Amino acid sequence: MIENITFIIAMEAEAMPLIDKFGLTEEAAFSPKLPMRAWKGKWQGINLTLVTNGKNKDTGLDLIGCEAAALATFQAVKEFQPQLLINAGTAGAFEENGARVGDVYLSRDRVVFHDHRVPIPGWDHQSEGHFPVWDTGQLRTLGFKYGIVTTGSSLDMPQEDEKNIRRLGGEIKDMEAAAVAWVALLHEVPVFCIKAVTDLVDSGKPTHDEFLRNLRLATNNLCDGCERIIRFLAQSPDIRLR
Amino acid sequence: MIENITFIIAMEAEAMPLIDKFGLTEEAAFSPKLPMRAWKGKWQGINLTLVTNGKNKDTGLDLIGCEAAALATFQAVKEFQPQLLINAGTAGAFEENGARVGDVYLSRDRVVFHDHRVPIPGWDHQSEGHFPVWDTGQLRTLGFKYGIVTTGSSLDMPQEDEKNIRRLGGEIKDMEAAAVAWVALLHEVPVFCIKAVTDLVDSGKPTHDEFLRNLRLATNNLCDGCERIIRFLAQSPDIRLR
Repeated sequence: MIENITFIIAMEAEAMPLIDKFGLTEEAAFSPKLPMRAWKGKWQGINLTLVTNGKNKDTGLDLIGCEAAALATFQAVKEFQPQLLINAGTAGAFEENGARVGDVYLSRDRVVFHDHRVPIPGWDHQSEGHFPVWDTGQLRTLGFKYGIVTTGSSLDMPQEDEKNIRRLGGEIKDMEAAAVAWVALLHEVPVFCIKAVTDLVDSGKPTHDEFLRNLRLATNNLCDGCERIIRFLAQSPDIRLR
Repeated sequence: MIENITFIIAMEAEAMPLIDKFGLTEEAAFSPKLPMRAWKGKWQGINLTLVTNGKNKDTGLDLIGCEAAALATFQAVKEFQPQLLINAGTAGAFEENGARVGDVYLSRDRVVFHDHRVPIPGWDHQSEGHFPVWDTGQLRTLGFKYGIVTTGSSLDMPQEDEKNIRRLGGEIKDMEAAAVAWVALLHEVPVFCIKAVTDLVDSGKPTHDEFLRNLRLATNNLCDGCERIIRFLAQSPDIRLR
């Protein structure tokens, strides 16, 4: 039985539906020197915590991307010592793979950086990460889609990134997962991703337009998906962490 | 008078000449759960600490890049509370700007991410960082070259990155500086970069070949440059931190 789970979520707009759904309350003492924020509560018998990257104090805009995600995960693991990390958020996906806006995907196999190019033998593979993720096959009955998540620091997808995503078999394109997974792996905490699709990166439409238009739909579906997973885990004493 | 300075250095090959020069000894208790390593000592009356990203435990290769640099800087600031951070390392530069292999540059003005593209108003500028750096003009008499440092997670420079570097006025291309500067800024610790040139990114030669061939020359020059800076700071009671 899993009793202690931490969500790592980049943006407050992605996190708020979950905070409401699970009735979490903010931990004001979390990371006083950093922008990251944390919420805590208990739902269906599971201790839940949720950490966001926080906001830029000058712009009021959410911090997104890999540096913030690495620090958020580090603080979360240190503070809450979770048995399982869930990196929840929104992402892009490929229409040609059958993805639709609003679809909810679980990570499978591994997460990879698609924009860490170091063409020196050994460093090439290491820089991409190829971090193993928790066996989401155990959630198969919940009916989610499955895909390899790849991570980069940009919302767009120039040729160089697309070429790497295709080589890596990437099906979900996000901006945090591999950074979260790296820090989780350093601390030997199992991690997986749940990602709701805001935009189809091969649609020909600008990602940023689609992202903003579809953010609410995606975050609602993300929240529903997380609720179903936590409910399932609470009712599944035999679930394996390794 | 500055009494407490921390160097943030990605690779051990870059750090070792400095560790020897300053007679630093390892702090075995630094970050036991993380790969980062730290060394400590006193030289010319200044307390010096030095933190490296550490190595991947499976490959034995140095961890390079922004996620590791962010965690290393966070741990360094928390543990050593430096008055000044110096991000020292090797980097690429532009032949067309007069750079030569082995040249040592100091950062000027700001450091910027050249591969964090988020084309949404507000997020575009925020994601690039544009983090102010410490006023290296105070070191002008030491005769270093000066340049705007831009950071990305890759050793190569595809068109998209080159376009951004040119737009940003980038003269030194590295893989950690902006991540270090972001964490320094969060903690209100002044930071600057000293970067020795391993490769000319506009030479037409593959960066990785140049990088490996010129690493020793660059790290020796980097070490000499750091020594001259620390000696100068030790003899400059009027140096301004802000």
